[in-house]
Amino acid sequence: MSDHISQITPAFAGGTMDRADQVRVNPDRLRDAMMRPNARLLRLDGLNPVFDDHGNLAWGAAYEASPDNDLLLLGMDGDTPCFAELNGAGNAGPAADPRLWQALGGLPPEQAAVYATARSLVDWHARHRFCAQCGKPTESRKGGWARLCDPEKDGCGAEHFPRTDPVAIMLSECEGKVLLGRQPRFPVKRFSALAGFIEPGESIEGGVRRELWEEAGIKVRDVRYVASQPWPFPSSLMIACTSITDDPTLTLDEEEIEEAGWFSLAEVQSAMAGDPDAPFIAPPPFAIAHDLLRHWIDLQTG
Amino acid sequence: MSDHISQITPAFAGGTMDRADQVRVNPDRLRDAMMRPNARLLRLDGLNPVFDDHGNLAWGAAYEASPDNDLLLLGMDGDTPCFAELNGAGNAGPAADPRLWQALGGLPPEQAAVYATARSLVDWHARHRFCAQCGKPTESRKGGWARLCDPEKDGCGAEHFPRTDPVAIMLSECEGKVLLGRQPRFPVKRFSALAGFIEPGESIEGGVRRELWEEAGIKVRDVRYVASQPWPFPSSLMIACTSITDDPTLTLDEEEIEEAGWFSLAEVQSAMAGDPDAPFIAPPPFAIAHDLLRHWIDLQTG
Ligand SMILES: [Zn+2]
Ligand SMILES: [Zn+2]
Repeated sequence: MSDHISQITPAFAGGTMDRADQVRVNPDRLRDAMMRPNARLLRLDGLNPVFDDHGNLAWGAAYEASPDNDLLLLGMDGDTPCFAELNGAGNAGPAADPRLWQALGGLPPEQAAVYATARSLVDWHARHRFCAQCGKPTESRKGGWARLCDPEKDGCGAEHFPRTDPVAIMLSECEGKVLLGRQPRFPVKRFSALAGFIEPGESIEGGVRRELWEEAGIKVRDVRYVASQPWPFPSSLMIACTSITDDPTLTLDEEEIEEAGWFSLAEVQSAMAGDPDAPFIAPPPFAIAHDLLRHWIDLQTG
Repeated sequence: MSDHISQITPAFAGGTMDRADQVRVNPDRLRDAMMRPNARLLRLDGLNPVFDDHGNLAWGAAYEASPDNDLLLLGMDGDTPCFAELNGAGNAGPAADPRLWQALGGLPPEQAAVYATARSLVDWHARHRFCAQCGKPTESRKGGWARLCDPEKDGCGAEHFPRTDPVAIMLSECEGKVLLGRQPRFPVKRFSALAGFIEPGESIEGGVRRELWEEAGIKVRDVRYVASQPWPFPSSLMIACTSITDDPTLTLDEEEIEEAGWFSLAEVQSAMAGDPDAPFIAPPPFAIAHDLLRHWIDLQTG
């Protein structure tokens, strides 16, 4: 259908498990899946993963779940129903300590995707226990893929679904150099692609243009999609793009971006190689900004 | 940076107004914008647009807003602050009558985007008046771009942001033909691209593969992004893709898709031309499925 297909699969984007939507929505099939002796339960420490001795995600049996907690149907691994426990853990912040990142970085892609799904959903349930429409308590339904404000319990009947927030993350290129910036919360010397939430009433391309205007004061053209990544902190869909600008003059929104600049191919290559003399520290491999810079290098060296 | 840039701008995706995020977050600047004598108010009939005699969006003055309603800052049109009234209208359904579609179809792209933004936000406020975390009432903040569960009024302090739900909408191609289907709610003979919400823990590409597997029983490869569109019914981000499959055998999810089939280039061309003898009626021009089919024809005829 076309000559260019993205081969990039960022961290968390390698999900292959059958999500079994037909089981979710069928109470009989869902109960049957929960009762099967082989049904598995993803072990979680709050929102964090638990690893086995080989660095894989650790699993228990579904019957080990607390009777007080609802179960989330992650999907079917062949004939094996896979669940996580809605354990009440929630975290509005970006979270995650460096050891967690390291352990996640070692997971096979399909396991990272399973964890991403579980983390986003467990967190969503913990922070969405009430109906946004009427304020009454809601209950998990459809194997954890919805919450109902139950009209039989005086609720308004609204059904609520997990949210996924699309985020544009983007490079801009000018005269062979690429724009990277630092958020105030970044580690020392770390620079990355600029990013921001896509808003109601705008396209991906519109979001890229607006964010680069707001944060860096540049007008860009030729926005091009590169790759996407689920990001479970708490529940974003990262959408990576490139763009072009003709005027490199920067005007920074210093609340968002404390420093930004244009970097040459050689500078980006040395940072991506981990060279201690590089002018900045590149984003880590599990971040789609890393894939985006790798893609940009490939285009330049092509 | 690359040889292929999408030139497609679907309906609602042509927003050019400065959204003025710096004004939203600054209470003094926001108040100043509201008080300016030239400040404008988008006229709405519930969630529906009001048109002037030329078929443009109708505007009043900001001071005409009801003192009971909060204002949404749509942005700055040059020196003119543009607002909409959070009038309490909400609608969970897909909505919209044919006359509305016709009138929207005649709007210039930037006006359609302004309306899309206003509609999604007015609706979001109406259906999110309570805190999902604690159940208490929330209040509009940041010029309508957030709701706060005010800790000074016994709230939990959670800040809530408008949601934008990413939806994958996609073609699949096999042996020179393209897959289209009918949802039970479609008008007679209408066929369109299949679509579904992207879930937490999956990429755009993963969502395309899963939806086509769930709804049509086909395994696809080479997913490729084409274009995106904000869709304010109530608040989706439509992400249009193409894909390839090697086995055209369909197994339909008949709850979602009542009929589906593979259509040739000549059949798609005749439907897009509005030929009364075409085997199906094409999606309307304001739907990104229309742009997607136009793109597919262009690729074939090239
Ligand atoms: Zn309710
Ligand atoms: Zn609250």
